Amino acid sequence: MVARWETLNKTPIADLKIFTAHAVQRRHPTHGHIGTFTVLESAEWVNIIPLTRNNEIVMIQQYRHGTDSITLEVPGGLVEEGENPCGAAMRECKEETGYGAPHEALLVGVNEPNPAFMNNRCYSYLWQDCRLEYSPQPDEFEDIAVELVPVSRISEYIRSGKIAHSLTLTALLFYMLRVGILL
Amino acid sequence: MVARWETLNKTPIADLKIFTAHAVQRRHPTHGHIGTFTVLESAEWVNIIPLTRNNEIVMIQQYRHGTDSITLEVPGGLVEEGENPCGAAMRECKEETGYGAPHEALLVGVNEPNPAFMNNRCYSYLWQDCRLEYSPQPDEFEDIAVELVPVSRISEYIRSGKIAHSLTLTALLFYMLRVGILL
Repeated sequence: MVARWETLNKTPIADLKIFTAHAVQRRHPTHGHIGTFTVLESAEWVNIIPLTRNNEIVMIQQYRHGTDSITLEVPGGLVEEGENPCGAAMRECKEETGYGAPHEALLVGVNEPNPAFMNNRCYSYLWQDCRLEYSPQPDEFEDIAVELVPVSRISEYIRSGKIAHSLTLTALLFYMLRVGILL
Repeated sequence: MVARWETLNKTPIADLKIFTAHAVQRRHPTHGHIGTFTVLESAEWVNIIPLTRNNEIVMIQQYRHGTDSITLEVPGGLVEEGENPCGAAMRECKEETGYGAPHEALLVGVNEPNPAFMNNRCYSYLWQDCRLEYSPQPDEFEDIAVELVPVSRISEYIRSGKIAHSLTLTALLFYMLRVGILL
């Protein structure tokens, strides 16, 4: 059987703003090997599929510093202190797009963004019957354009690479499993 | 329109073994704001869906240091110096599971694991007609158990959270779009 390692020591090696990098020393319970592994600790993440009554997904074009490119994604972000994941997902949606609905969003799935070196999870929500209700309030460095993507074009956008963020793709997969059809 | 920022400076702040963390200073081309952003630079990643003639996906149970838990994933890893992504994916599959096929694997999609702070991509492959042909040769710290998962049980495994790694989920979505059915 595959065994969980025993944690011996954990030292922060860098505060990278969005997460803290730790060097974690662990021992394998059976063969006794000791190794030091990099773990990034972060708050939980959320993303959300806001769906309009016209069967469009409210997506955002956004400049992303990792890839130095403009991406097309569903809204999302960090769960802040004192928030629950659903509240965080609805807040991000309203802040980034101005879209919302009077009822609560529905959890469609939870994933691990990268269990190899990240400790957190990402909660994905579906928010039906969304409409433009608020003024978007992006963060200081966020520069966002809303794009309404008809559900019928999602697979074409994925195949062409226009939608490429793994966490947006994961949310869309959860949504497809929820509704029982491949978009 | 959403604008790409102009890069002013890039400084390595930590070598975290699997990637290098950089502090990148950038200026927005329109409003002139300057900010410093964390970017993790890494080699390209690959993962692969090895499919047997019995319509099973060759998956692996593996201890993961990020989540400190045992996960169920498709094989995958880093593209090494001098390799192409397809060769890397087939190598990882053989090393981790011992499964392989005499023909080349097929690219089913490319994603960006996290464009917000990672610069790399992940290439996903499908390798049909795989069978046990090699002795698995996991890395020093890899402790892996192979699990053959019938394709018909994939959606159940996703819904229950048994398969939760975002990059495995993304590879499965690409596979579903390729074959045109929701598993």
